[in-house]
Amino acid sequence: MNHLVLEPSEVSADATVRLTGRRLVHAREVLHARPGATVKVGLLGGLRGRGEVLSSSDAELVLKVVLDEPPPPRANVDLVLAMPRPKQLKRVLAAAASLGVDRIVLLNAAKVEKSYFDSKVLDPTFLDHLIRLGLEQARDTVPPQLLVRERFKPFVEDELEAFCGDARRWLAHGEASQALPRRAPGERVVLAVGPEGGWTPFELELLAKQRFIPVTLGPRPLRVEVAVPALVGALGP
Amino acid sequence: MNHLVLEPSEVSADATVRLTGRRLVHAREVLHARPGATVKVGLLGGLRGRGEVLSSSDAELVLKVVLDEPPPPRANVDLVLAMPRPKQLKRVLAAAASLGVDRIVLLNAAKVEKSYFDSKVLDPTFLDHLIRLGLEQARDTVPPQLLVRERFKPFVEDELEAFCGDARRWLAHGEASQALPRRAPGERVVLAVGPEGGWTPFELELLAKQRFIPVTLGPRPLRVEVAVPALVGALGP
Repeated sequence: MNHLVLEPSEVSADATVRLTGRRLVHAREVLHARPGATVKVGLLGGLRGRGEVLSSSDAELVLKVVLDEPPPPRANVDLVLAMPRPKQLKRVLAAAASLGVDRIVLLNAAKVEKSYFDSKVLDPTFLDHLIRLGLEQARDTVPPQLLVRERFKPFVEDELEAFCGDARRWLAHGEASQALPRRAPGERVVLAVGPEGGWTPFELELLAKQRFIPVTLGPRPLRVEVAVPALVGALGP
Repeated sequence: MNHLVLEPSEVSADATVRLTGRRLVHAREVLHARPGATVKVGLLGGLRGRGEVLSSSDAELVLKVVLDEPPPPRANVDLVLAMPRPKQLKRVLAAAASLGVDRIVLLNAAKVEKSYFDSKVLDPTFLDHLIRLGLEQARDTVPPQLLVRERFKPFVEDELEAFCGDARRWLAHGEASQALPRRAPGERVVLAVGPEGGWTPFELELLAKQRFIPVTLGPRPLRVEVAVPALVGALGP
Protein backbone atom coordinates (compact mmCIF):
# COMPACT_ATOMS: atom_id res chain seq x y z
CA MET A 1 0.00 0.00 0.00
CA ASN A 2 1.86 3.07 -1.23
CA HIS A 3 -0.89 5.47 -0.27
CA LEU A 4 -4.22 5.30 1.53
CA VAL A 5 -7.17 5.63 -0.85
CA LEU A 6 -9.97 7.75 0.63
CA GLU A 7 -13.60 7.87 -0.44
CA PRO A 8 -14.94 11.39 -1.08
CA SER A 9 -17.61 10.75 1.60
CA GLU A 10 -14.86 10.12 4.16
CA VAL A 11 -13.37 13.61 3.94
CA SER A 12 -15.20 16.09 6.18
CA ALA A 13 -15.57 19.80 5.53
CA ASP A 14 -12.58 20.56 7.79
CA ALA A 15 -10.40 18.12 5.77
CA THR A 16 -10.24 15.50 8.51
CA VAL A 17 -10.63 11.81 7.79
CA ARG A 18 -11.35 8.99 10.23
CA LEU A 19 -10.14 5.58 9.14
CA THR A 20 -10.77 2.08 10.46
CA GLY A 21 -10.20 -1.45 9.12
CA ARG A 22 -7.41 -2.31 6.63
CA ARG A 23 -6.14 1.23 6.29
CA LEU A 24 -5.97 1.73 10.05
CA VAL A 25 -4.07 -1.55 10.44
CA HIS A 26 -1.69 -0.64 7.63
CA ALA A 27 -1.04 2.83 9.01
CA ARG A 28 -0.33 1.49 12.49
CA GLU A 29 1.49 -1.75 11.77
CA VAL A 30 3.38 -0.98 8.59
CA LEU A 31 3.77 2.81 8.59
CA HIS A 32 3.93 3.07 12.42
CA ALA A 33 1.97 6.29 11.99
CA ARG A 34 2.08 8.37 15.20
CA PRO A 35 0.54 11.80 15.82
CA GLY A 36 2.47 14.42 13.87
CA ALA A 37 3.62 11.94 11.18
CA THR A 38 2.59 12.37 7.56
CA VAL A 39 1.17 9.61 5.36
CA LYS A 40 0.47 9.60 1.65
CA VAL A 41 -3.17 9.64 0.62
CA GLY A 42 -5.29 9.83 -2.53
CA LEU A 43 -8.92 10.71 -3.01
CA LEU A 44 -10.78 8.09 -5.08
CA GLY A 45 -11.32 9.66 -8.50
CA GLY A 46 -9.49 12.83 -7.44
CA LEU A 47 -6.25 14.37 -6.25
CA ARG A 48 -3.43 12.87 -4.21
CA GLY A 49 -1.68 14.41 -1.26
CA ARG A 50 -0.65 13.99 2.35
CA GLY A 51 -2.41 13.34 5.63
CA GLU A 52 -1.07 14.58 8.95
CA VAL A 53 -1.83 12.09 11.71
CA LEU A 54 -3.89 13.90 14.37
CA SER A 55 -4.50 10.79 16.45
CA SER A 56 -4.02 7.06 16.17
CA SER A 57 -5.52 4.29 18.27
CA ASP A 58 -6.66 0.69 17.86
CA ALA A 59 -10.12 2.10 17.10
CA GLU A 60 -9.34 4.74 14.49
CA LEU A 61 -6.80 6.89 12.71
CA VAL A 62 -7.61 10.58 12.33
CA LEU A 63 -5.89 12.49 9.55
CA LYS A 64 -5.94 16.08 8.37
CA VAL A 65 -5.44 15.91 4.62
CA VAL A 66 -4.09 18.23 1.94
CA LEU A 67 -4.95 17.13 -1.60
CA ASP A 68 -3.05 19.10 -4.22
CA GLU A 69 -1.28 16.62 -6.48
CA PRO A 70 -2.77 15.15 -9.67
CA PRO A 71 -2.86 11.35 -10.01
CA PRO A 72 -0.23 9.74 -12.27
CA PRO A 73 -0.79 9.82 -16.04
CA ARG A 74 -3.05 7.14 -17.52
CA ALA A 75 -1.75 4.24 -19.61
CA ASN A 76 -4.07 5.17 -22.49
CA VAL A 77 -4.86 1.49 -22.82
CA ASP A 78 -8.13 -0.44 -22.65
CA LEU A 79 -8.29 -4.21 -22.35
CA VAL A 80 -10.73 -6.70 -23.82
CA LEU A 81 -9.96 -9.84 -21.83
CA ALA A 82 -11.45 -13.25 -22.38
CA MET A 83 -12.69 -14.00 -18.86
CA PRO A 84 -9.72 -15.49 -16.98
CA ARG A 85 -10.02 -18.20 -14.36
CA PRO A 86 -10.70 -16.69 -10.91
CA LYS A 87 -7.10 -16.92 -9.64
CA GLN A 88 -5.77 -15.16 -12.73
CA LEU A 89 -8.60 -12.63 -12.73
CA LYS A 90 -7.66 -11.50 -9.24
CA ARG A 91 -4.07 -10.92 -10.24
CA VAL A 92 -4.73 -9.29 -13.59
CA LEU A 93 -7.27 -6.80 -12.22
CA ALA A 94 -4.87 -5.54 -9.56
CA ALA A 95 -2.05 -5.49 -12.13
CA ALA A 96 -4.13 -3.60 -14.72
CA ALA A 97 -5.26 -1.06 -12.14
CA SER A 98 -1.66 -0.49 -11.06
CA LEU A 99 -0.62 0.02 -14.68
CA GLY A 100 -3.27 2.72 -15.18
CA VAL A 101 -5.48 0.83 -17.65
CA ASP A 102 -8.65 2.84 -18.30
CA ARG A 103 -11.30 0.25 -19.12
CA ILE A 104 -11.45 -3.54 -18.85
CA VAL A 105 -14.03 -5.72 -20.56
CA LEU A 106 -14.33 -9.25 -19.16
CA LEU A 107 -15.69 -11.08 -22.15
CA ASN A 108 -16.97 -14.59 -22.69
CA ALA A 109 -15.35 -16.75 -25.38
CA ALA A 110 -15.75 -20.31 -26.62
CA LYS A 111 -12.80 -21.54 -24.56
CA VAL A 112 -13.82 -19.79 -21.35
CA GLU A 113 -15.25 -22.19 -18.78
CA LYS A 114 -18.83 -21.24 -17.95
CA SER A 115 -18.15 -21.53 -14.22
CA TYR A 116 -15.80 -18.50 -14.39
CA PHE A 117 -18.84 -16.22 -14.66
CA ASP A 118 -20.42 -17.77 -11.56
CA SER A 119 -17.30 -17.15 -9.53
CA LYS A 120 -17.65 -15.23 -6.31
CA VAL A 121 -14.71 -13.16 -7.59
CA LEU A 122 -17.29 -11.34 -9.75
CA ASP A 123 -19.03 -9.91 -6.70
CA PRO A 124 -18.84 -6.11 -7.27
CA THR A 125 -17.50 -5.48 -3.75
CA PHE A 126 -14.68 -7.95 -4.31
CA LEU A 127 -13.87 -6.60 -7.79
CA ASP A 128 -13.72 -3.14 -6.29
CA HIS A 129 -11.34 -4.43 -3.61
CA LEU A 130 -8.99 -5.96 -6.20
CA ILE A 131 -8.89 -2.73 -8.17
CA ARG A 132 -8.32 -0.77 -4.97
CA LEU A 133 -5.23 -2.91 -4.30
CA GLY A 134 -3.84 -1.81 -7.66
CA LEU A 135 -4.55 1.86 -6.98
CA GLU A 136 -2.89 1.65 -3.56
CA GLN A 137 0.14 0.02 -5.15
CA ALA A 138 0.60 2.58 -7.92
CA ARG A 139 -0.38 5.66 -5.89
CA ASP A 140 -3.25 6.13 -8.31
CA THR A 141 -6.76 7.35 -7.53
CA VAL A 142 -8.62 6.56 -10.77
CA PRO A 143 -10.02 3.03 -10.97
CA PRO A 144 -10.39 1.32 -14.34
CA GLN A 145 -13.98 0.94 -15.49
CA LEU A 146 -15.05 -2.67 -15.57
CA LEU A 147 -17.57 -4.20 -17.98
CA VAL A 148 -18.67 -7.83 -17.77
CA ARG A 149 -20.08 -9.28 -21.00
CA GLU A 150 -21.33 -12.84 -21.02
CA ARG A 151 -22.14 -12.92 -24.73
CA PHE A 152 -19.23 -12.60 -27.16
CA LYS A 153 -21.01 -11.97 -30.45
CA PRO A 154 -23.42 -9.21 -29.40
CA PHE A 155 -20.61 -7.38 -27.61
CA VAL A 156 -18.20 -7.59 -30.54
CA GLU A 157 -20.81 -6.78 -33.20
CA ASP A 158 -22.85 -4.14 -31.39
CA GLU A 159 -20.66 -2.52 -28.73
CA LEU A 160 -17.00 -2.91 -29.62
CA GLU A 161 -16.86 -0.30 -32.40
CA ALA A 162 -18.15 2.45 -30.11
CA PHE A 163 -16.00 1.15 -27.24
CA CYS A 164 -12.84 1.46 -29.34
CA GLY A 165 -13.58 4.71 -31.14
CA ASP A 166 -10.40 5.92 -32.83
CA ALA A 167 -8.05 3.76 -30.69
CA ARG A 168 -5.56 1.38 -32.34
CA ARG A 169 -6.82 -2.19 -32.05
CA TRP A 170 -4.43 -5.04 -31.39
CA LEU A 171 -5.21 -8.66 -30.74
CA ALA A 172 -2.55 -10.62 -28.85
CA HIS A 173 -2.10 -13.93 -30.66
CA GLY A 174 0.90 -16.20 -30.20
CA GLU A 175 0.80 -17.31 -33.81
CA ALA A 176 0.61 -13.85 -35.36
CA SER A 177 3.41 -12.98 -37.77
CA GLN A 178 3.66 -9.32 -36.70
CA ALA A 179 5.29 -8.19 -33.45
CA LEU A 180 3.34 -5.69 -31.35
CA PRO A 181 4.70 -2.32 -32.51
CA ARG A 182 5.42 0.61 -30.22
CA ARG A 183 2.73 3.22 -30.36
CA ALA A 184 2.95 6.81 -31.49
CA PRO A 185 3.19 9.16 -28.48
CA GLY A 186 -0.26 9.69 -26.97
CA GLU A 187 -1.90 7.06 -29.15
CA ARG A 188 -4.82 5.30 -27.47
CA VAL A 189 -4.80 1.48 -27.74
CA VAL A 190 -7.29 -1.33 -27.18
CA LEU A 191 -5.66 -4.72 -26.54
CA ALA A 192 -7.67 -7.93 -26.88
CA VAL A 193 -6.24 -10.89 -24.95
CA GLY A 194 -7.68 -14.35 -25.52
CA PRO A 195 -8.41 -17.23 -23.15
CA GLU A 196 -5.83 -19.87 -22.18
CA GLY A 197 -6.92 -22.08 -25.05
CA GLY A 198 -6.89 -19.17 -27.51
CA TRP A 199 -9.62 -17.55 -29.61
CA THR A 200 -11.52 -19.77 -32.07
CA PRO A 201 -11.33 -19.02 -35.83
CA PHE A 202 -14.88 -17.64 -35.62
CA GLU A 203 -13.90 -15.25 -32.80
CA LEU A 204 -10.76 -14.16 -34.65
CA GLU A 205 -12.88 -13.44 -37.72
CA LEU A 206 -15.39 -11.35 -35.78
CA LEU A 207 -12.58 -9.38 -34.12
CA ALA A 208 -10.89 -8.92 -37.51
CA LYS A 209 -14.13 -7.38 -38.81
CA GLN A 210 -13.78 -4.83 -36.00
CA ARG A 211 -10.26 -4.08 -37.30
CA PHE A 212 -8.37 -5.92 -34.56
CA ILE A 213 -4.98 -6.87 -35.99
CA PRO A 214 -3.18 -9.98 -34.64
CA VAL A 215 0.21 -9.23 -33.07
CA THR A 216 2.57 -11.27 -30.92
CA LEU A 217 5.22 -10.89 -28.23
CA GLY A 218 6.72 -14.20 -29.32
CA PRO A 219 5.84 -17.89 -29.27
CA ARG A 220 5.61 -18.27 -25.46
CA PRO A 221 2.06 -18.70 -24.13
CA LEU A 222 1.93 -16.38 -21.10
CA ARG A 223 -0.49 -16.24 -18.23
CA VAL A 224 -2.84 -13.30 -18.60
CA GLU A 225 -1.40 -11.53 -15.54
CA VAL A 226 2.05 -11.73 -17.18
CA ALA A 227 0.86 -11.03 -20.72
CA VAL A 228 -0.96 -7.80 -19.81
CA PRO A 229 2.04 -6.03 -18.19
CA ALA A 230 4.31 -7.31 -20.99
CA LEU A 231 1.93 -5.96 -23.68
CA VAL A 232 1.50 -2.60 -21.93
CA GLY A 233 5.28 -2.37 -21.51
CA ALA A 234 5.84 -3.26 -25.16
CA LEU A 235 3.54 -0.45 -26.33
CA GLY A 236 5.91 2.08 -24.78
CA PRO A 237 4.93 5.40 -23.21
CA MET B 1 0.35 -26.59 -18.15
CA ASN B 2 0.94 -26.23 -21.87
CA HIS B 3 3.30 -29.16 -22.05
CA LEU B 4 4.57 -31.86 -19.70
CA VAL B 5 8.18 -31.28 -18.66
CA LEU B 6 10.17 -34.52 -18.51
CA GLU B 7 13.40 -35.17 -16.67
CA PRO B 8 16.14 -36.75 -18.82
CA SER B 9 16.26 -39.68 -16.35
CA GLU B 10 12.57 -40.38 -17.01
CA VAL B 11 13.02 -41.16 -20.70
CA SER B 12 14.03 -44.78 -21.28
CA ALA B 13 16.14 -46.06 -24.14
CA ASP B 14 13.01 -47.02 -26.11
CA ALA B 15 11.64 -43.45 -25.73
CA THR B 16 8.90 -44.42 -23.28
CA VAL B 17 8.13 -42.32 -20.22
CA ARG B 18 6.12 -43.31 -17.14
CA LEU B 19 4.52 -40.41 -15.29
CA THR B 20 2.81 -40.16 -11.90
CA GLY B 21 1.77 -37.29 -9.62
CA ARG B 22 0.88 -33.81 -10.94
CA ARG B 23 1.57 -34.61 -14.57
CA LEU B 24 -0.53 -37.78 -14.46
CA VAL B 25 -3.42 -35.88 -12.87
CA HIS B 26 -3.12 -33.08 -15.43
CA ALA B 27 -2.98 -35.50 -18.37
CA ARG B 28 -6.04 -37.39 -17.15
CA GLU B 29 -8.22 -34.64 -15.71
CA VAL B 30 -7.42 -31.67 -17.94
CA LEU B 31 -6.16 -33.21 -21.18
CA HIS B 32 -8.40 -36.35 -20.88
CA ALA B 33 -5.47 -38.23 -22.40
CA ARG B 34 -6.58 -41.69 -23.61
CA PRO B 35 -4.49 -44.32 -25.37
CA GLY B 36 -3.70 -43.15 -28.90
CA ALA B 37 -3.96 -39.46 -28.01
CA THR B 38 -0.96 -37.15 -28.32
CA VAL B 39 0.23 -34.73 -25.64
CA LYS B 40 2.86 -32.01 -25.83
CA VAL B 41 6.07 -32.66 -23.95
CA GLY B 42 9.47 -31.05 -23.38
CA LEU B 43 12.71 -32.51 -22.06
CA LEU B 44 14.18 -30.44 -19.24
CA GLY B 45 17.15 -28.62 -20.73
CA GLY B 46 16.51 -30.16 -24.14
CA LEU B 47 14.12 -30.50 -27.05
CA ARG B 48 10.33 -30.35 -27.16
CA GLY B 49 7.99 -32.70 -28.93
CA ARG B 50 5.01 -35.00 -28.59
CA GLY B 51 4.12 -38.03 -26.55
CA GLU B 52 1.73 -40.70 -27.77
CA VAL B 53 -0.32 -42.10 -24.89
CA LEU B 54 0.34 -45.86 -24.71
CA SER B 55 -1.66 -46.38 -21.54
CA SER B 56 -3.32 -44.31 -18.88
CA SER B 57 -4.57 -45.35 -15.45
CA ASP B 58 -4.94 -43.85 -11.99
CA ALA B 59 -1.49 -45.24 -11.25
CA GLU B 60 0.52 -44.02 -14.22
CA LEU B 61 0.59 -42.55 -17.70
CA VAL B 62 2.85 -44.21 -20.25
CA LEU B 63 3.99 -42.16 -23.22
CA LYS B 64 6.14 -42.84 -26.25
CA VAL B 65 7.89 -39.57 -27.01
CA VAL B 66 9.37 -37.92 -30.09
CA LEU B 67 11.61 -34.96 -29.28
CA ASP B 68 12.55 -32.97 -32.37
CA GLU B 69 11.60 -29.34 -31.77
CA PRO B 70 13.92 -26.72 -30.24
CA PRO B 71 12.67 -24.78 -27.20
CA PRO B 72 11.47 -21.20 -27.80
CA PRO B 73 14.08 -18.44 -28.15
CA ARG B 74 15.47 -16.96 -24.93
CA ALA B 75 14.60 -13.47 -23.70
CA ASN B 76 18.29 -12.50 -23.56
CA VAL B 77 17.58 -10.91 -20.21
CA ASP B 78 19.05 -11.48 -16.75
CA LEU B 79 17.48 -10.10 -13.58
CA VAL B 80 19.08 -8.78 -10.43
CA LEU B 81 16.13 -8.66 -8.03
CA ALA B 82 16.15 -7.29 -4.53
CA MET B 83 14.71 -10.25 -2.64
CA PRO B 84 10.91 -9.91 -2.85
CA ARG B 85 8.54 -10.92 -0.08
CA PRO B 86 7.63 -14.63 -0.37
CA LYS B 87 4.24 -14.11 -2.04
CA GLN B 88 5.77 -11.90 -4.73
CA LEU B 89 8.80 -14.16 -5.12
CA LYS B 90 6.57 -17.10 -6.00
CA ARG B 91 4.81 -15.11 -8.70
CA VAL B 92 7.87 -13.42 -10.16
CA LEU B 93 9.88 -16.65 -10.48
CA ALA B 94 7.14 -18.38 -12.45
CA ALA B 95 6.63 -15.22 -14.52
CA ALA B 96 10.36 -14.82 -15.25
CA ALA B 97 10.69 -18.48 -16.22
CA SER B 98 7.71 -18.16 -18.57
CA LEU B 99 9.27 -15.07 -20.17
CA GLY B 100 12.52 -16.95 -20.88
CA VAL B 101 14.77 -15.01 -18.49
CA ASP B 102 18.21 -16.64 -18.37
CA ARG B 103 19.54 -15.87 -14.90
CA ILE B 104 17.99 -14.45 -11.75
CA VAL B 105 19.95 -13.13 -8.79
CA LEU B 106 17.95 -12.80 -5.57
CA LEU B 107 19.92 -10.12 -3.77
CA ASN B 108 19.75 -8.61 -0.34
CA ALA B 109 19.28 -4.85 0.03
CA ALA B 110 18.86 -2.43 2.92
CA LYS B 111 15.08 -2.36 2.54
CA VAL B 112 14.65 -6.12 2.23
CA GLU B 113 13.24 -7.68 5.39
CA LYS B 114 15.70 -10.18 6.85
CA SER B 115 12.94 -12.78 7.25
CA TYR B 116 12.57 -13.07 3.46
CA PHE B 117 15.79 -15.06 3.36
CA ASP B 118 14.51 -17.49 6.00
CA SER B 119 11.37 -18.15 4.03
CA LYS B 120 10.53 -21.73 3.21
CA VAL B 121 10.00 -20.47 -0.34
CA LEU B 122 13.81 -20.58 -0.65
CA ASP B 123 13.86 -24.35 -0.32
CA PRO B 124 15.55 -25.52 -3.55
CA THR B 125 12.81 -28.09 -4.27
CA PHE B 126 10.15 -25.41 -4.00
CA LEU B 127 12.12 -22.91 -6.11
CA ASP B 128 12.52 -25.60 -8.73
CA HIS B 129 8.76 -26.23 -8.63
CA LEU B 130 7.98 -22.52 -9.17
CA ILE B 131 10.31 -22.35 -12.13
CA ARG B 132 8.84 -25.56 -13.53
CA LEU B 133 5.39 -23.92 -13.49
CA GLY B 134 6.78 -21.14 -15.71
CA LEU B 135 8.36 -23.64 -18.13
CA GLU B 136 5.11 -25.62 -18.36
CA GLN B 137 3.21 -22.41 -19.06
CA ALA B 138 5.52 -21.16 -21.83
CA ARG B 139 6.28 -24.55 -23.41
CA ASP B 140 9.90 -23.97 -22.50
CA THR B 141 12.44 -26.54 -21.33
CA VAL B 142 15.31 -24.33 -20.16
CA PRO B 143 15.04 -23.13 -16.55
CA PRO B 144 16.57 -19.83 -15.52
CA GLN B 145 19.64 -20.16 -13.32
CA LEU B 146 19.01 -18.91 -9.82
CA LEU B 147 21.59 -17.29 -7.53
CA VAL B 148 20.80 -16.26 -3.96
CA ARG B 149 23.10 -13.60 -2.51
CA GLU B 150 22.58 -12.47 1.05
CA ARG B 151 25.28 -9.79 0.98
CA PHE B 152 24.73 -6.84 -1.34
CA LYS B 153 28.14 -5.18 -1.35
CA PRO B 154 30.35 -8.22 -2.01
CA PHE B 155 28.04 -9.35 -4.81
CA VAL B 156 27.93 -5.95 -6.49
CA GLU B 157 31.64 -5.22 -6.07
CA ASP B 158 33.11 -8.66 -6.71
CA GLU B 159 30.66 -10.66 -8.84
CA LEU B 160 28.41 -8.32 -10.78
CA GLU B 161 30.94 -7.21 -13.41
CA ALA B 162 31.64 -10.77 -14.50
CA PHE B 163 27.94 -11.64 -14.24
CA CYS B 164 27.02 -8.83 -16.65
CA GLY B 165 29.86 -9.16 -19.13
CA ASP B 166 29.04 -7.07 -22.19
CA ALA B 167 25.29 -6.87 -21.48
CA ARG B 168 23.51 -3.50 -21.26
CA ARG B 169 22.85 -2.65 -17.63
CA TRP B 170 19.62 -0.95 -16.61
CA LEU B 171 18.35 -0.17 -13.16
CA ALA B 172 14.58 0.26 -12.83
CA HIS B 173 13.98 3.37 -10.74
CA GLY B 174 10.67 5.22 -10.57
CA GLU B 175 12.38 8.58 -10.20
CA ALA B 176 14.79 8.18 -13.11
CA SER B 177 14.53 10.83 -15.81
CA GLN B 178 15.20 8.44 -18.70
CA ALA B 179 12.60 5.99 -20.04
CA LEU B 180 13.78 2.40 -20.57
CA PRO B 181 14.83 2.36 -24.25
CA ARG B 182 14.16 -0.50 -26.64
CA ARG B 183 17.20 -2.62 -27.20
CA ALA B 184 19.13 -3.24 -30.38
CA PRO B 185 18.14 -6.60 -31.91
CA GLY B 186 19.94 -9.44 -30.11
CA GLU B 187 21.32 -7.14 -27.41
CA ARG B 188 21.74 -8.85 -24.05
CA VAL B 189 20.35 -6.93 -21.04
CA VAL B 190 20.69 -7.11 -17.26
CA LEU B 191 17.81 -5.46 -15.38
CA ALA B 192 18.16 -4.56 -11.70
CA VAL B 193 14.85 -4.21 -9.84
CA GLY B 194 14.84 -2.80 -6.32
CA PRO B 195 12.84 -3.67 -3.22
CA GLU B 196 9.39 -2.25 -2.45
CA GLY B 197 10.96 0.61 -0.51
CA GLY B 198 13.51 1.29 -3.25
CA TRP B 199 17.32 1.16 -3.30
CA THR B 200 19.20 3.36 -0.85
CA PRO B 201 21.52 6.11 -2.16
CA PHE B 202 24.48 3.92 -1.18
CA GLU B 203 23.12 0.99 -3.19
CA LEU B 204 22.37 3.23 -6.18
CA GLU B 205 25.94 4.52 -6.03
CA LEU B 206 27.44 1.03 -5.95
CA LEU B 207 25.27 -0.06 -8.87
CA ALA B 208 26.20 3.11 -10.77
CA LYS B 209 29.88 2.19 -10.33
CA GLN B 210 29.03 -1.07 -12.14
CA ARG B 211 27.56 1.03 -14.97
CA PHE B 212 23.91 0.42 -14.14
CA ILE B 213 21.91 3.34 -15.56
CA PRO B 214 18.62 4.35 -13.90
CA VAL B 215 15.59 4.11 -16.19
CA THR B 216 11.87 4.24 -15.59
CA LEU B 217 8.58 2.98 -16.99
CA GLY B 218 6.81 5.93 -15.37
CA PRO B 219 5.96 7.19 -11.90
CA ARG B 220 3.78 4.24 -10.86
CA PRO B 221 5.36 1.95 -8.26
CA LEU B 222 4.62 -1.58 -9.54
CA ARG B 223 4.75 -4.91 -7.79
CA VAL B 224 7.82 -6.87 -8.86
CA GLU B 225 5.72 -9.53 -10.61
CA VAL B 226 4.12 -6.76 -12.71
CA ALA B 227 7.30 -4.71 -13.15
CA VAL B 228 9.35 -7.61 -14.54
CA PRO B 229 6.99 -8.50 -17.44
CA ALA B 230 6.48 -4.79 -18.16
CA LEU B 231 10.25 -4.19 -18.31
CA VAL B 232 10.90 -7.27 -20.47
CA GLY B 233 8.06 -6.19 -22.76
CA ALA B 234 9.40 -2.64 -22.96
CA LEU B 235 12.84 -3.88 -24.07
CA GLY B 236 11.26 -5.32 -27.19
CA PRO B 237 12.36 -8.45 -29.06
